[in-house]
Amino acid sequence: MNAYISRSSATRRRLECKVGEDVGLKMNPSSFSSRNEANSSQDTPDPLLPDFPKGPLSVYREKTSFNWRELALFLDGEDIIHFKNKIFSALESDPLFAQHSGKDLSLEQYRELTFLQIKRIFEYDFLTEDEMLEQPLKIRALLNCLGMYDWSLGAKHILNAQVFTGAVQNTGSERHSKFVKQIKSMEIFGSFALTEISHGSNTKAIRTTAHYDATTKEFIINSPDFEAAKFWVGNMGKTATHAVVYAQLYTPDGQCHGLHSFVVQIRDPKTLLSMPGVMVGDMGKKLGLNGIDNGFAMFHKVRIPQENLLNRTGDVSSLGVYITPFKDPKLRFGASLGALSTGRVLITGMAVVNVSLAVSIAIRFSATRRQFGPTDDEEIPVLEYQMQQWRLIPYLAAAYALDHFAKTLFMNLIELQIGLVMRDKSARQAELGREIHALSSASKPLASWTAQQGAQECREACGGHGYLAMNRLGDIRNDNDPNCTYEGDNNVLLQQTSNYLLNWVTLKHEGHEPIESPVGSVNFLEDYNSILGLKFTATTVEDCMDSAVALAAYKWLVCYLLKESCLKLKQEKENGSSEFDARNNSQVYYCRSLSLAFIELTVLERYHDHVEDSSTPSSLRPVLKNLCALYGLWSLNKHMSVLYQGGYCQGERAGKIVQGSILELCAKLKNDAVALVDVIAPPDFILNSPIAKADGELYKNLWTAVLQGNKVLERPSWWAEFCSKKPTVGILRSRM
Amino acid sequence: MNAYISRSSATRRRLECKVGEDVGLKMNPSSFSSRNEANSSQDTPDPLLPDFPKGPLSVYREKTSFNWRELALFLDGEDIIHFKNKIFSALESDPLFAQHSGKDLSLEQYRELTFLQIKRIFEYDFLTEDEMLEQPLKIRALLNCLGMYDWSLGAKHILNAQVFTGAVQNTGSERHSKFVKQIKSMEIFGSFALTEISHGSNTKAIRTTAHYDATTKEFIINSPDFEAAKFWVGNMGKTATHAVVYAQLYTPDGQCHGLHSFVVQIRDPKTLLSMPGVMVGDMGKKLGLNGIDNGFAMFHKVRIPQENLLNRTGDVSSLGVYITPFKDPKLRFGASLGALSTGRVLITGMAVVNVSLAVSIAIRFSATRRQFGPTDDEEIPVLEYQMQQWRLIPYLAAAYALDHFAKTLFMNLIELQIGLVMRDKSARQAELGREIHALSSASKPLASWTAQQGAQECREACGGHGYLAMNRLGDIRNDNDPNCTYEGDNNVLLQQTSNYLLNWVTLKHEGHEPIESPVGSVNFLEDYNSILGLKFTATTVEDCMDSAVALAAYKWLVCYLLKESCLKLKQEKENGSSEFDARNNSQVYYCRSLSLAFIELTVLERYHDHVEDSSTPSSLRPVLKNLCALYGLWSLNKHMSVLYQGGYCQGERAGKIVQGSILELCAKLKNDAVALVDVIAPPDFILNSPIAKADGELYKNLWTAVLQGNKVLERPSWWAEFCSKKPTVGILRSRM
Repeated sequence: MNAYISRSSATRRRLECKVGEDVGLKMNPSSFSSRNEANSSQDTPDPLLPDFPKGPLSVYREKTSFNWRELALFLDGEDIIHFKNKIFSALESDPLFAQHSGKDLSLEQYRELTFLQIKRIFEYDFLTEDEMLEQPLKIRALLNCLGMYDWSLGAKHILNAQVFTGAVQNTGSERHSKFVKQIKSMEIFGSFALTEISHGSNTKAIRTTAHYDATTKEFIINSPDFEAAKFWVGNMGKTATHAVVYAQLYTPDGQCHGLHSFVVQIRDPKTLLSMPGVMVGDMGKKLGLNGIDNGFAMFHKVRIPQENLLNRTGDVSSLGVYITPFKDPKLRFGASLGALSTGRVLITGMAVVNVSLAVSIAIRFSATRRQFGPTDDEEIPVLEYQMQQWRLIPYLAAAYALDHFAKTLFMNLIELQIGLVMRDKSARQAELGREIHALSSASKPLASWTAQQGAQECREACGGHGYLAMNRLGDIRNDNDPNCTYEGDNNVLLQQTSNYLLNWVTLKHEGHEPIESPVGSVNFLEDYNSILGLKFTATTVEDCMDSAVALAAYKWLVCYLLKESCLKLKQEKENGSSEFDARNNSQVYYCRSLSLAFIELTVLERYHDHVEDSSTPSSLRPVLKNLCALYGLWSLNKHMSVLYQGGYCQGERAGKIVQGSILELCAKLKNDAVALVDVIAPPDFILNSPIAKADGELYKNLWTAVLQGNKVLERPSWWAEFCSKKPTVGILRSRM
Repeated sequence: MNAYISRSSATRRRLECKVGEDVGLKMNPSSFSSRNEANSSQDTPDPLLPDFPKGPLSVYREKTSFNWRELALFLDGEDIIHFKNKIFSALESDPLFAQHSGKDLSLEQYRELTFLQIKRIFEYDFLTEDEMLEQPLKIRALLNCLGMYDWSLGAKHILNAQVFTGAVQNTGSERHSKFVKQIKSMEIFGSFALTEISHGSNTKAIRTTAHYDATTKEFIINSPDFEAAKFWVGNMGKTATHAVVYAQLYTPDGQCHGLHSFVVQIRDPKTLLSMPGVMVGDMGKKLGLNGIDNGFAMFHKVRIPQENLLNRTGDVSSLGVYITPFKDPKLRFGASLGALSTGRVLITGMAVVNVSLAVSIAIRFSATRRQFGPTDDEEIPVLEYQMQQWRLIPYLAAAYALDHFAKTLFMNLIELQIGLVMRDKSARQAELGREIHALSSASKPLASWTAQQGAQECREACGGHGYLAMNRLGDIRNDNDPNCTYEGDNNVLLQQTSNYLLNWVTLKHEGHEPIESPVGSVNFLEDYNSILGLKFTATTVEDCMDSAVALAAYKWLVCYLLKESCLKLKQEKENGSSEFDARNNSQVYYCRSLSLAFIELTVLERYHDHVEDSSTPSSLRPVLKNLCALYGLWSLNKHMSVLYQGGYCQGERAGKIVQGSILELCAKLKNDAVALVDVIAPPDFILNSPIAKADGELYKNLWTAVLQGNKVLERPSWWAEFCSKKPTVGILRSRM
């Protein structure tokens, strides 16, 4: 994430200027004016967004209410589309990237393949530093393109090129630039080692130690016992030569100065054998992401040079005296808050890619799979069933709304990073860090869970064919799963967001200035009391076609949950609970719901504003409005009981209108669903699912793929076990 | 399922007698009276239910409110416990069953291993036909024990020994007994081929044909094209020699008589090579259950003897005349309804095993994993957090309630099967078939979804360690997944249940006799109108500790949804929808919710009655009551918005009481959770999860297991790819 950050004010101006442009995503309307006509295929092929092959999906494509090219251009712009195309076609043309999903690679083979692909990525060097500076959104595009191909590749790349490097740059100083240089030429390979076998969420309790030895000017890195072994470290299993290791820093006077990070060499780059005193190994098979080698390490008094301490927040003099710009260790710990958001912001986007891939597969399948019909002779596409629409189309809407959020949050982060690089000490910069921390701490849970549930629903909605590995829904689900866990367990993370919101209320009570945050996500709380007095006023399904209805309900919901959470905390304390217990007993149904409702509101609000923005082409607005309204109501519907409980809704009608509107919006979007997928789905080679190719030839593609399997029609090698060695029934009964 | 069915009235009496006993699960209280004291370990070791090793879990075991042995005996009885122990210890002592989960077996290796294990099961012959007759619950126990070890093994065994065999016995006649005999000695190996690549749920649209050739007295089995290839057939990929094949039967006069089943030989048992004209192969890797070889088959005018038609519901004379006892083809199709329930009843139980395994792992983990605490120095088990309790303990309650339901439904099925064997033509028998069909069509979805969501929650609740394959939560989730799909897609199946309920209402309107079904699940509908007039009356959390509160709410909920579904269907028809459209547009929020609410009610009601039954030991009643109340409220809470919408609940208090009660019950059960797991978890060897061993030595066991992996500490075989062959950054940029 940090490679694009250099330290001149010229760069800063350049970046700030780009940020403004990118967030707004303004584009020259003339760039698609020639494509603004009907949906029929064009006479001259479009090299940027080529026509889809004719086939069973054409029926739906012809029914579409909008021009898919116009939407694609509106979302990404020519530059990014061109950039993505370049990456996709490089992968497709290169035999090293021949698809293997659904194949039966061993762990060793998969890891070797992923490593070779990583090397090849160095050779392609898709994105230079200058290009990153020019257009930061390309960082996101590159990661997502690699991930659409295979998250093992995307994640392994980012762990080395961004996470390790970012940690060195963010927490180190000039003296560490050699490591960054070595990473860039692949002289060394990096990993990031925070988690231990017995500590994950509670990072402060990490037990690895780093004692300073003033006589040799070295730190001695040590794992007190195996329960303090570093664990789950990506790239550490087989490939990393270096790790950023978090350890408790001790000065010779015996004082502990808390958690600091150190660059530790764990393997010899010439041999990949482990360094003396380092016991490093592989954790074995995981539920997914098996192209990445997650590993563990135990350090037996391993000595590293003094300068390997990443010294941004604290340093040790050669004589062993601790020096820090922070007087309060808590402040030092909190100083890295902004940087910690990077992972969560990226994961938010990664999860959105997963729900997009899954829903693309399931919708193309559903548009071509026929089952039952009004008569015995006529079968209809399963997408025509209300049930199937209801199962899938909301996830399509979620993919669109969340992608917009992930993109804008990414640009917020870029703004924050620029401030960090510029050593901006303003109150706004600090507040921006807090706001992004709060947003990303809830958007990662929301996006990863939406992708988890979406991938599962898509798997089930494709029936048995969804259970076939080659159709990829399993890999999508399995590779998405860790998004719920790493960079903070979802449920634990959500507490960060509710704490942020509760803090605003406290400040307000203390009579501080109006509630106003750098990117404005909490500004509505200024109207807290008046919002709490509002009611659900929609009386027809037609009313609810406007996402303003869901938006208003969400604002009430967040205010109500905020009020209830405050009360609950107060009650707990009045009943004698400690601060610790009061917090813990106010999560379920209170703070946890609050954080989720708040982030759903923020996602909805940003998407609503985007759709309603005057720069949004009027030709696209109807379909985008439907997506926005559907996402809003579908999300809101999960909170209906609270809306009733708190009195925002009353009577039978409210619930029925919301439900009826969700179904109505699904029906409205049904004929647009295939084209909406066409806009977000990568090319067939990358999507890599026989049941979801763009030509819609479901069974031909599936059948072909099945027959290309290994030894499909052969008898098993162990056939004699059946044919000649028959069991004697019951011969072993006596053994029992 | 049918091996235990023979046709003498002596057998019938014997079975009926057992059914009564087994359903009631009465037991001699004296059998555990000696164990009825405190929870401390005994002086003389109990060979049936040995003590657990001392360790970190002891703290919780000592806090337990009940005697775990007493509960284990109450649930299963000595006989079944002894039977399970026998199976478990046979597997543990046999090197062929050494655990491989988390290991990196290739598809070919896994299948070979599973097949060898199947052979070994023949040799153990755990359950003879006589023993099945004696105690039908042992059939269930055997399947579940094999599944707890590995569902690939359990499912492969049952596909051959029960599904193929059952189909031959249920739909065939005496002339087919040779096949059963050959299966039992493993001369042949069976599979069941209904689904085609383009047809699953809509079985009537199956397109494989069977033309009768009177000149040779043969049927010609043919796949008209590849879209009619049999697909997804378990055991067909590599091992089956025979398949029960469903095909449209044509007589020489050109008339089609609809779907019939035929025994078709697909491979030569002497060579395992495919038979002439049969193109049979393997579908490749799936998301789970990879020990089973799912396959496909295309038939190119394959001739089979006339007598291979399974002729229970229709036959063809040697001259080619079709003969059937059913005049109406619809009735013929419906006649097999009862038999179709078998799969769903068994899957209900299989899914319960999965949620039990998952929650056993997650609770033992949570009782030993410590993270954060009231002070920086003191970390507490994560099970102490309300959030973790709320995430896990309801699934523990679900495992208990659903297991009781699965067991009683299984016994209902046995009663039905006895009637089928006895050719019982009574109205009660027919009605019992319909009721079990309706119950199993909803209990399969409920149980499989509960297990799916439970396994996912447990995976996440164990954090990163839950993502490590060796800890088994991935296999549990992946192997459970097809339970949502096969034997009827969950959402499609649910329509069967709502149709059944709607039919009762129609009958009632037509002035028929009182609503009374053979096992009584719909009897409460007799009070339909008065139930609809009731309200939520609980006013305190204390009130809700009684599961009667949730039970009453559920009865109202089902009546309300039934009323609403009737209205919605009527409205759709009044608005001009066809019958087909009206049904389809009344599923979401109406019929689908109705079916789920109904089955949740039935599960809750049976568990409530069981807990309140006078035969339930008073020493166990408190903990069982808590489980029952928690399952009821936790399930009910998902419907709170409907309870408000329909006016059953009003005001803020109702919602808060329900939520508060769920948390209160979780807190009450927290200290019993480990012992409740001890009752349902299989031995360590079978549970096979290092983070969940009975000794609770979480990290020691995990660390040991990680180090036992293959080449854990070695550098990768392809190390030179890093060490000597360095990439040249950007060398391929020109290629793009």
